[in-house]
Parts: sequence; C-alpha cells; structure tokens
Amino acid sequence: MQFEIFTLFPEIFPSYLNSSILKRAQQNGHIHVNLHNIRDWTHDKHHVTDDNPYGGGGGMIMKPEPVFAAVEDVIGTPPACPIILMTPQGRLFTQKVADELAAQPRLALLSGRYEGLDERIRTHLVTDEISIGDYVLTGGELPSLILIDALSRLIPGVLGDENGATNDSHASGLLEGPHYTRPLEFRGWEVPAILRSGDHAKVAQWRREQALLRTLERRPEMLEEFELTKKDRDFLEQLRKDES
Amino acid sequence: MQFEIFTLFPEIFPSYLNSSILKRAQQNGHIHVNLHNIRDWTHDKHHVTDDNPYGGGGGMIMKPEPVFAAVEDVIGTPPACPIILMTPQGRLFTQKVADELAAQPRLALLSGRYEGLDERIRTHLVTDEISIGDYVLTGGELPSLILIDALSRLIPGVLGDENGATNDSHASGLLEGPHYTRPLEFRGWEVPAILRSGDHAKVAQWRREQALLRTLERRPEMLEEFELTKKDRDFLEQLRKDES
Repeated sequence: MQFEIFTLFPEIFPSYLNSSILKRAQQNGHIHVNLHNIRDWTHDKHHVTDDNPYGGGGGMIMKPEPVFAAVEDVIGTPPACPIILMTPQGRLFTQKVADELAAQPRLALLSGRYEGLDERIRTHLVTDEISIGDYVLTGGELPSLILIDALSRLIPGVLGDENGATNDSHASGLLEGPHYTRPLEFRGWEVPAILRSGDHAKVAQWRREQALLRTLERRPEMLEEFELTKKDRDFLEQLRKDES
Repeated sequence: MQFEIFTLFPEIFPSYLNSSILKRAQQNGHIHVNLHNIRDWTHDKHHVTDDNPYGGGGGMIMKPEPVFAAVEDVIGTPPACPIILMTPQGRLFTQKVADELAAQPRLALLSGRYEGLDERIRTHLVTDEISIGDYVLTGGELPSLILIDALSRLIPGVLGDENGATNDSHASGLLEGPHYTRPLEFRGWEVPAILRSGDHAKVAQWRREQALLRTLERRPEMLEEFELTKKDRDFLEQLRKDES
C-alpha cells in the first residue's frame, strides 16, 4: 500500500514512520510512504502557503493554488487514488473505516492546518474527509500518522502474528479483557488461576467473558452492534440475574 | 502545564514536540514535557520490558515491574497527579474531556503497547484511561501526542490569537463552516460575495448559518447537544420548510 502525504510539516513524520512496526513494514515493502512538502509547489519568493480569511476573523487559511498544484502533480487529474482530507469536519474514523480504506492500493492524505483551508480545496480537490475524533488539533499531521498506523496493521504480513490483530479492542467488536504476564505474584496481586490451568477451552471462554464484561461496563453501546452467540447471551443474562 | 510521558519509544516524540505551536509553547514556558523511557527502570542484563501472556495466545505483554518503578519514581506514591493510560478500552477523548484535563497542572501519560499490558498496571497504578477513538493502533505514543496537542491549545497564551480556538469545530459545539482566502477567483470558482461585503454583522450571521448547515448535514447528532439560539432555530426551521 502506498501513502502520499501532503503537509507543510514533513519533518514531523519520519520519527514515527521509522519506529517499530511501520519501519519493518516499509523495509519489507508492505507499505511505501512518500512525503510531499506543499511549500515546494509555491512559486513566489517567500513560499507563501496561507493568507488572511475573506470576511475577517482570526487564523490564517491555506491557499488553494499550492495544494492543488502539489496534489495534481503527484496524483494526476483525474486523481489516480482517493484524496483524503484530515479534518474535524470529516466522517469519524473507526475500525470499520480502516477496513474499508485498507483495501485501497494507494491513498493521498492531506494534512490541513485545522485553523482552516480554502473551501475550494474541499469542494473541488479532495474526495473524502476523515476525522479521528471530536477534538481540536493543530493540524492533520498526527491524524495522518494515526491513519497510516491503523491501516498498515491490516495489511497481510505487516504484523508478525497473523492472528494478533483480530482480538484487539475494536477489531473484534468487543473491548479486550485483561492480560497478565510474569511475575505470577506482584506485590501480593496474583495472576488469576484459570490462566495457569492449562485448559485452553476454559481460558478461551474466560477471555471471551471478560471481553463481554469489560465492554458492558465501559462501552455498552458497542454490544448492540455486536453479533452475540447463544453462549454470550447466556453469560450476559446470568450477569443481569446476579446483579438483581 | 507539565506532561510526564512514559513510553518504550521516547524517540517518537521530539519531532512533533519541536514543531509549530508546541515548540513555542515550550519556549514560552507554557508547557513542559518530560520523556521517560520505561526501559531505564529495568534491572536485568537485557532490559526486558515484556513477556509472554499467561494462558497463551499471540502478542507480548508489558511487565508490571518496570512500569510501576518508572511511574512511582517520577510521580511518587501516592501519585502527585493523574496517571492516564492511553488505551482503546478507555473513555472516549472529546473536546469536553480536553477541557476537563487542561485544568490539571500536571499529567502523567502512559503509552502502552496496544497488544497488551499487565492488568495489575491498570488496576493498581493508573488513575484514568483514555481512548482517542474506536480503532486499533500500535501503541499509545500517537494518542499521547494527540492529548498533549489538544490540551496545550487550551492553555491561555499558547495560541497567539486568544479567540482563535473558540470557533474551531468541536470547540464551539458546531462544525466550522467554509473559509476562503485569496485569490478571489480560482479556476472560475469565486469567493462568496457576502464575505467581501464588509458587513460584519452579515458575515457573522452567514458563518453561523453555514456552521449550523454543515453540522446538520454531517453530524446531526451534535445539534441535539448544542444550545441553539432563537435565531438558530428559525434558520433550521426555514431550511426544513425549503426542503419540503
């Protein structure tokens, strides 16, 4: 999968891209990330990329010319791949959206400055708008990295353990239950006996129940969208009885 | 405001912290960010911070000892400030949560690896758990940066323009409407005449209406939580009439 990143701050990206899983994913050729500095597509002496807003008010607005020039130069016209604007006004990024986007061979990610970006970029250049959450950030750079990280994990071969990702919170549709590692006892707090029982079926059932329990306690609305098995429903029913 | 970052990958942070607004915020003493490598609190030859999960299964789990040692060494016992675990199982980060946390003089942010972290850290060390969204990431490093960015913007003096932040999408409770800057005409697409009228009251009204319109189109559920003025309600009512 190929990512084309358009930003005014390309220097933000390498330290994350060159660490851990994403570094390996690039070395193994699973993902390619190209960084494009929008400023390189300005033609004036001072390389101006923003200007005051029409109608007054605070904050600077990104000008349309360099953004159009950069994106069209790299992606072509008509665009060879989706052009995604990272913006708090976009559709909310979820694991479902990640699954959808991970099917694309190539994506262009435009990191706007969140103070604003000329509306003509939004209407006539970008093809999709995505928000990573309902909060205000300085720019689209961290959101772009979030997207690259979440999508890369879905590409076959990127995670060492092919099954590692499917039980993760939000990937399965449930929050994950507790994990334990050594030491067996730490400050008097012990690892639950069931995890040391060696009974794989029982461990699997316990983990499933803990995931259901945690989701019920913390994000009950997620259970409404989740396809419960008969066993799941019995467990939840029993919980309700025990509480009353 | 002081941030204490606990991570296995401190090298990820500086490039973002040293750019743009966060760089200035640190130079001006508005925020202080201290990076702590959890690995420095291991005492074995190989500086091991993770181990296999009890009960089997894929993925490595962060061990409790180095995390407890690091956090307690820096924050003290009982903890001198909230200790926040960045995890997809936490409460959802929103601008409201940002407002709440920005009131703290000091915060500790623990970046777990999302594959897992010994449950005893969660139950006996951290005091709050936050998720930046419903998707799976490699670790808590980007979420920590998201939190630092969102919170820093709320500290008086960090943004040059004191009013700049209040109209941002999610800060006002509405999505922002369109912005335009020069050129007046770009590829035949013109800036709306109202923004060039010089009539500040009319511009303000247009912007309010555009914000309402965009929120209605893209995130109608946000309007339910928003305190509409009489004028807002009249505008939305008129929209409904025009549509039918």
